[in-house]
Amino acid sequence: MAPPPGGGGIKGMIMKYPEAVQRLKNIEGHIRGIERMLGENTYCIDVIRQVQAVQAALNKVSIIILDEHLNTCLITAVRGEDPLERERVLHEIAEVFETATKS
Amino acid sequence: MAPPPGGGGIKGMIMKYPEAVQRLKNIEGHIRGIERMLGENTYCIDVIRQVQAVQAALNKVSIIILDEHLNTCLITAVRGEDPLERERVLHEIAEVFETATKS
Amino acid sequence: MAPPPGGGGIKGMIMKYPEAVQRLKNIEGHIRGIERMLGENTYCIDVIRQVQAVQAALNKVSIIILDEHLNTCLITAVRGEDPLERERVLHEIAEVFETATKS
Amino acid sequence: MAPPPGGGGIKGMIMKYPEAVQRLKNIEGHIRGIERMLGENTYCIDVIRQVQAVQAALNKVSIIILDEHLNTCLITAVRGEDPLERERVLHEIAEVFETATKS
Repeated sequence: MAPPPGGGGIKGMIMKYPEAVQRLKNIEGHIRGIERMLGENTYCIDVIRQVQAVQAALNKVSIIILDEHLNTCLITAVRGEDPLERERVLHEIAEVFETATKS
Repeated sequence: MAPPPGGGGIKGMIMKYPEAVQRLKNIEGHIRGIERMLGENTYCIDVIRQVQAVQAALNKVSIIILDEHLNTCLITAVRGEDPLERERVLHEIAEVFETATKS
Repeated sequence: MAPPPGGGGIKGMIMKYPEAVQRLKNIEGHIRGIERMLGENTYCIDVIRQVQAVQAALNKVSIIILDEHLNTCLITAVRGEDPLERERVLHEIAEVFETATKS
Repeated sequence: MAPPPGGGGIKGMIMKYPEAVQRLKNIEGHIRGIERMLGENTYCIDVIRQVQAVQAALNKVSIIILDEHLNTCLITAVRGEDPLERERVLHEIAEVFETATKS
């Protein structure tokens, strides 16, 4: 039997979201550090490198959330009886992949 | 009942693969054009722009194939009875997404 | 004559850095918004889309800083008398470009 | 004195372009291999991984050409007497960087 809708989401939150939130808090601190670097007239290239490090850290956050999504919402939708809901969920995956290849 | 393994793949081939193959043939021609540009000493930036255009065209090919994969192999695996197979297929999606964020 | 070292940097700070700092402050707020979304159990895909929007905003910050760098530090180095310094600055540009193609 | 226009380009061609052309020829072969994989109904994810490998190989080609460009055309333009030409060349670098962050 397919798990009830939402059940996966709650499990997701318990399992992985604290890790994503913690990583986002670290990223916030990283960004404040970059603001300080700009205020102190740090060498431009060193600033750009830090911005690129933040982007790599955000990639990791996206992957954590996607992984959770695949193991909860996607399984629920694909096993569910609603073909439109299934199509929607699969289409969203293709969409975030498309955006990922462009940023 | 889940469709038999491989059934999705064949359907995928019939529906979308000719489009992917045609796009790859166009990309091949595009790359030969870039080789000629280098031989004719074309302005470097114009060459780089063409390489970037090829990369955008390859992104489109990846998305076509991923879309097919989600609508065939992934559905088969998620509805199937083998939890290891399901895990493997979901993990692969996360993996190609991760690579996409890095290229 | 080449401008004195640092002159370009100061000019850069006056012209474009406030814009970069302001954008980073907006990005910080955006990230706090994503943390809240995770706390409120927002749909995973909507969270991923917001993370991708932050990454696009960070790309813009990198471009602003690179643009400034090219018009100040790079000009100083390329017109300067020190071949090692020139090589270093040109190599750094290639390096941040390389990282950009991977994130 | 600034080197004559084109001088850098010729040097560039002698030094690095054969490497770029050779890499593009290898990439062409790689793409034909992917077309074959699609014809033989290879597993979708393995095809996507090969497309991603081609994109990484194209990144390398872009970097080789950019590196050459920086060390020839850019030096010529920045040391030259034409401020519009200098601006144009610097703006192009920012532009290809911007496209790189989006593909």
